[in-house]
Amino acid sequence: MTEIADPAVTLQRLRASIDNIDAALIFMLAERFRCTQQVGVLKAEHGMPASDPNREREQISRLRSLALDAELDPEFAHKWFTFVVSEVIRHHNTAAESAGSDAAGAAESAGPDAAGPGASAGSDAGDARGPQES
Amino acid sequence: MTEIADPAVTLQRLRASIDNIDAALIFMLAERFRCTQQVGVLKAEHGMPASDPNREREQISRLRSLALDAELDPEFAHKWFTFVVSEVIRHHNTAAESAGSDAAGAAESAGPDAAGPGASAGSDAGDARGPQES
Repeated sequence: MTEIADPAVTLQRLRASIDNIDAALIFMLAERFRCTQQVGVLKAEHGMPASDPNREREQISRLRSLALDAELDPEFAHKWFTFVVSEVIRHHNTAAESAGSDAAGAAESAGPDAAGPGASAGSDAGDARGPQES
Repeated sequence: MTEIADPAVTLQRLRASIDNIDAALIFMLAERFRCTQQVGVLKAEHGMPASDPNREREQISRLRSLALDAELDPEFAHKWFTFVVSEVIRHHNTAAESAGSDAAGAAESAGPDAAGPGASAGSDAGDARGPQES
């Protein structure tokens, strides 16, 4: 009991910060989706390869380094990245199915079942190419 | 082939945006961890209950609403929230083990195996109470 402030008030303050941060995260995730969707369209329009293993390796390496700078567990950052990418791919695959496309075949190697670190290595999953990339 | 710009340049531009957004996300996640760790300490110090189902229900409902505003799939937002929370809990449980504590028992119902939407309902997982809360 070393705190002077009412713990309920402190809890309320911390939860308000968590809520603000979560809102920021949701809006940044939405913006990330907008970018990856544009990448999907671009690659489809210009016949660019869906897979770019070097790109993903660089992304993971960079995010782990940034996590260390931010005092965030780099393993968490790695798993978080893989989760987001696999969800984006799953989302795009669902869209592809409803559009009657069999695209994103290479993407399936980093699908929703492969959420562990490194599971999606070998695909340019960081761009989350969409169904347009058949 | 309706684009005027070099597609490689456009891809580079989009990837630079994705990289910026990912950096922002990592730093915001780090800040979220700092808040949830403080919540864990606060609850432990004051014997406050670890579980608060109403709080988590409100968080999920709010994030789904924000996702709609941002044109992000609310199911993705929901799964993302559950993933982050379960990882925070896993991280804290690991810390608890190394500290010789058997804390966070209630948290296990929303553990790393329960990554689906709704899987963590019933616990105040949004605060990710730490090992201090035994």
